[in-house]
Amino acid sequence: MIVVLKQKTPDEKRAQLIEWLEGQGLKVHISEGEYQTVLGLVGNTSHVDMDLIASLGIVDSVKRVTDPFKCCNRKFHPDDTIVEVGDVRIGHGHFVMIAGPCSVETEEQIVAVAKAVKKSGAQMLRGGAFKPRTSPYDFQGLKAEGIELLKIARAETGLPIVTEVMGVRDLPLFEDVDVVQIGARNMQNFDLLREVGRLKKPVLLKRGLANTLKELLMSAEYIMAGGNEQVILCERGIRTFDDYTRNTLDLAAVPMLRELTHLPIIVDPSHATGIARLVPPMAMSAAACGSDGLIIEVHNDPMHALCDGAQSLTPEEYDVLADKVRRIREVAVQ
Amino acid sequence: MIVVLKQKTPDEKRAQLIEWLEGQGLKVHISEGEYQTVLGLVGNTSHVDMDLIASLGIVDSVKRVTDPFKCCNRKFHPDDTIVEVGDVRIGHGHFVMIAGPCSVETEEQIVAVAKAVKKSGAQMLRGGAFKPRTSPYDFQGLKAEGIELLKIARAETGLPIVTEVMGVRDLPLFEDVDVVQIGARNMQNFDLLREVGRLKKPVLLKRGLANTLKELLMSAEYIMAGGNEQVILCERGIRTFDDYTRNTLDLAAVPMLRELTHLPIIVDPSHATGIARLVPPMAMSAAACGSDGLIIEVHNDPMHALCDGAQSLTPEEYDVLADKVRRIREVAVQ
Amino acid sequence: MIVVLKQKTPDEKRAQLIEWLEGQGLKVHISEGEYQTVLGLVGNTSHVDMDLIASLGIVDSVKRVTDPFKCCNRKFHPDDTIVEVGDVRIGHGHFVMIAGPCSVETEEQIVAVAKAVKKSGAQMLRGGAFKPRTSPYDFQGLKAEGIELLKIARAETGLPIVTEVMGVRDLPLFEDVDVVQIGARNMQNFDLLREVGRLKKPVLLKRGLANTLKELLMSAEYIMAGGNEQVILCERGIRTFDDYTRNTLDLAAVPMLRELTHLPIIVDPSHATGIARLVPPMAMSAAACGSDGLIIEVHNDPMHALCDGAQSLTPEEYDVLADKVRRIREVAVQ
Amino acid sequence: MIVVLKQKTPDEKRAQLIEWLEGQGLKVHISEGEYQTVLGLVGNTSHVDMDLIASLGIVDSVKRVTDPFKCCNRKFHPDDTIVEVGDVRIGHGHFVMIAGPCSVETEEQIVAVAKAVKKSGAQMLRGGAFKPRTSPYDFQGLKAEGIELLKIARAETGLPIVTEVMGVRDLPLFEDVDVVQIGARNMQNFDLLREVGRLKKPVLLKRGLANTLKELLMSAEYIMAGGNEQVILCERGIRTFDDYTRNTLDLAAVPMLRELTHLPIIVDPSHATGIARLVPPMAMSAAACGSDGLIIEVHNDPMHALCDGAQSLTPEEYDVLADKVRRIREVAVQ
Repeated sequence: MIVVLKQKTPDEKRAQLIEWLEGQGLKVHISEGEYQTVLGLVGNTSHVDMDLIASLGIVDSVKRVTDPFKCCNRKFHPDDTIVEVGDVRIGHGHFVMIAGPCSVETEEQIVAVAKAVKKSGAQMLRGGAFKPRTSPYDFQGLKAEGIELLKIARAETGLPIVTEVMGVRDLPLFEDVDVVQIGARNMQNFDLLREVGRLKKPVLLKRGLANTLKELLMSAEYIMAGGNEQVILCERGIRTFDDYTRNTLDLAAVPMLRELTHLPIIVDPSHATGIARLVPPMAMSAAACGSDGLIIEVHNDPMHALCDGAQSLTPEEYDVLADKVRRIREVAVQ
Repeated sequence: MIVVLKQKTPDEKRAQLIEWLEGQGLKVHISEGEYQTVLGLVGNTSHVDMDLIASLGIVDSVKRVTDPFKCCNRKFHPDDTIVEVGDVRIGHGHFVMIAGPCSVETEEQIVAVAKAVKKSGAQMLRGGAFKPRTSPYDFQGLKAEGIELLKIARAETGLPIVTEVMGVRDLPLFEDVDVVQIGARNMQNFDLLREVGRLKKPVLLKRGLANTLKELLMSAEYIMAGGNEQVILCERGIRTFDDYTRNTLDLAAVPMLRELTHLPIIVDPSHATGIARLVPPMAMSAAACGSDGLIIEVHNDPMHALCDGAQSLTPEEYDVLADKVRRIREVAVQ
Repeated sequence: MIVVLKQKTPDEKRAQLIEWLEGQGLKVHISEGEYQTVLGLVGNTSHVDMDLIASLGIVDSVKRVTDPFKCCNRKFHPDDTIVEVGDVRIGHGHFVMIAGPCSVETEEQIVAVAKAVKKSGAQMLRGGAFKPRTSPYDFQGLKAEGIELLKIARAETGLPIVTEVMGVRDLPLFEDVDVVQIGARNMQNFDLLREVGRLKKPVLLKRGLANTLKELLMSAEYIMAGGNEQVILCERGIRTFDDYTRNTLDLAAVPMLRELTHLPIIVDPSHATGIARLVPPMAMSAAACGSDGLIIEVHNDPMHALCDGAQSLTPEEYDVLADKVRRIREVAVQ
Repeated sequence: MIVVLKQKTPDEKRAQLIEWLEGQGLKVHISEGEYQTVLGLVGNTSHVDMDLIASLGIVDSVKRVTDPFKCCNRKFHPDDTIVEVGDVRIGHGHFVMIAGPCSVETEEQIVAVAKAVKKSGAQMLRGGAFKPRTSPYDFQGLKAEGIELLKIARAETGLPIVTEVMGVRDLPLFEDVDVVQIGARNMQNFDLLREVGRLKKPVLLKRGLANTLKELLMSAEYIMAGGNEQVILCERGIRTFDDYTRNTLDLAAVPMLRELTHLPIIVDPSHATGIARLVPPMAMSAAACGSDGLIIEVHNDPMHALCDGAQSLTPEEYDVLADKVRRIREVAVQ
């Protein structure tokens, strides 16, 4: 950690700071410049409160040289992690196609969509049983019943299932779910992160709308520090001034995360854009930049189909897209 | 709700959309323009999925005319809500000063700070027992013990206590806390919101780092829809491209929320800026724009004091500030 | 244009507003709802100041139904525009590869890079002669001499040249330049836009760092309203809270702009990311989402090459990338 | 400047980088850590391209220790600058009230507003003659005629005038203007900045919508490096995800800029919010946080007045506000 002091810092204050730092078991190297003094801290700085130091009156700025994340850090674990879900492998060259409806509605619906997306090559089924809704008056999902319907669809197709958990008390219902999803709004629900860190099953962790890549990795760290190393990261759009799509899909996060971590990274173009007709171009872009998979909303609802529909693709649209994605990926990863 | 259709929408598709809308119990008024057709929806549109309609291929845009929030909406409840905590009243001209350390550390510390801020006119004591930390390796707070120490400080000073809850399972520990705080990262933890909606005590709801005012109000609505109408809103900075403060304090939110809701609105200049020397100017600004109170970090830790300290003010700095805040407020609300 | 009035608007104030609107030549349709009144304005609303109306005390919100942009609007001009630069065609299925160094430095450099990128299939040469620099102390480009060197490279390779203009007084120097570029910082330099609107040559208009798509289109409108319809739009990243890349490349802008306008849309992955090793994945993503071309920085400077260099690719890296881009594009636009 | 190298950098690459840095006249101190190597660069680093180094493959990150701005840097010029405009002084405890209409419309209008705001204590008159408009079809201002009308108002009231310049070719028209304004959209129009740097009169420099404080200071540096040291900085709102006001007023910028620079700092609450009824609370907040002045829109147009009007205050509203601002300032700066 590097601490840059302000000009004309009184010697006494500087000595107090150094003493305090040394009291935390750190060695302090002092380097005097013409206008500023720089302190280099050597030792275990992972417990040092960088924000606190940065806010001291005599400090100009602080820079962390070593990353605060360990378990998910590629520096300490250079090989790609491969997450396994039944026969499906994700990461290190294994690309996963996850698809399914936004919400689980009926047995007929979820089974029909599962069969359709499987035919197009999807390897996993998604579907919301617990739905995070901005309004308390909106439909909150079928909950336990939704999970049961997902299991029926799994039994019919063999597709493993991934679905979102919204609270620690609901976790027992997820015992037989294959992949537990943490939604964007819960990316820093540390209570929930700690709890899924105790599970023995993969966790799909979505990036929060206003979270940096380092924060995403620190949330993965919460899960991994608990003993669960099967984490899949998911870029799903960030909140910006832009107003024409729901969020701004930040695809450069994919190659950047690839450098920082060994965990697999997938992309959700459906929630990022919120507009079905933007999903195919963004899905192809996500395949082209080297992601490890795509999670895409597909429905078979006639209303949606009639009107070119919503955020979800029809099974026919998904079929065309899945083929293009595979071929683009072949070129991209050569 | 107003739906603007795209140019050259096929009559058939338009008819299907109208039929679907009517099927949801809405009356549809059609108004044909030179380039576009506008549908006016009349009836109870609070359950209509605006995002779904906006994403249809034939729709150009959608605009909600009535707000989706009811309980906290000033339109349906024109008088200011006053939240009462013991003898302390907040809102409708009653200004509250809340102060205390970031984390509760020891009995000695919390009692000393409580006494000091009380002397400066603070009416409520804050202090973190459960701490939301980006890193799993950072200090997570004294938890149950921290709450006990807060109660001791309350017994010594008579100041009601406010402290943050991070998970539903911890709620029983908050039974004897005066005000329960929902932190910024949990503003859309709907599971937790629903649960504090069942409490019979005031909730301090902080705005999320990337949440709009409408989303803040919808989260208040979650709490109020559960029967708990004692909600205090708190602006504490939003995430922007700006890099010199931790967040950007959005003070115009105060007069804007005043128009939209009858709930009291307070400001947290400590977390917004993350820099102690910016807290006094921002606290005075918050008093000048008509907020209903301030929640400010104050510590008595010598290390901090020596170095002008961190995000927290010293008791002496707080004393000077509290006096100025009172006098600015007098001018502002005349 | 649709104007939603606030609840309980006094009849007198409402009448005054309607009278004022009618005084501007508009017909006003009044539609009374349970909680609010909606005014529909019919007629030429392109001169009506939407912000002014939105800010009136009795107005809840305003929505424009017709777009304020005409010349670049796909509604009024459904066919794709093809911009022609010598033999090179851009738009409507014609994909353009533009490449070259950030700054023109020497004849040797610019000719060598031009020859290298031509060999890899680039159809146009870029190179900065006038450089927008945040600091007045940084190198500002070779200016007139840089343009002369670009012309030499064009003579040697036959590649048309594109270079940035930063002020109206420099325009005479651009007489023999093939495409004039307006940089992101000048996207709303209306004085300069008006002036390039009088030219008889194509303009490459970059999106500003904090500008919406509508603002980008309005800036294109400034140029086109002056009589110059040869405008190429360029997405080059927006400013967000993200701190790991220089800007956030907003690729969904490509298919979205495609719907809104008939103008060609290209992408600049070099400036968006500022990091050479992120350029290939983002360039491939840009090809996959249907853009009409790529503008990429390529250098042959040994220092850069040695260290994998900067924001610019080496000619060898560009050669590999150009081939992949072509093949991805083939799959994407099928 | 501090350069942190990546783990396992080949010795050869590291040696090449160090050689290249030394070739630029810098001394390089190497400090080896357990996981990373840190290079400390000593010497004149103001010409070193930090972005270029940051983007090298072997570099993890770069940190500038000394600021790239000199003329406006408080480190090198600890005393506050006082800008003088006739008898009016701005900065170092001198607070300035600037007011006037958005656009100059008629002699009658500008003279009436000038007289009214003078009576309320305003010391300078603002008014747009050249108007930056997003749309080429909107009113662009009275231009030269507008400046003449401002001069008439000055003759009638004695108030110095401030008005915006949008292009270098218009500068001769501003010869007799007291303060030349650079608008937010032109904050990085370097051609124009350089030109007003040659003037012998004060420049009011507005912060761009997406510009950091350092970028604002670098733009001031462009002006000052040209020899014109009379620069007034103006915070006027930044672009964020927030959608309820036109921009987000970033008031913490005021005390932060105060630390970084000796130049006076004023605030424009009218453009920041775009809503007249939010101007008084934000103006009071700006006075409370220690700014050196306010620039506020005031009109006397009956339409606006009738409807509580737009972004501009009525003279009566301004009169009430001006008095409160003075009294809040008295408390704040004690």
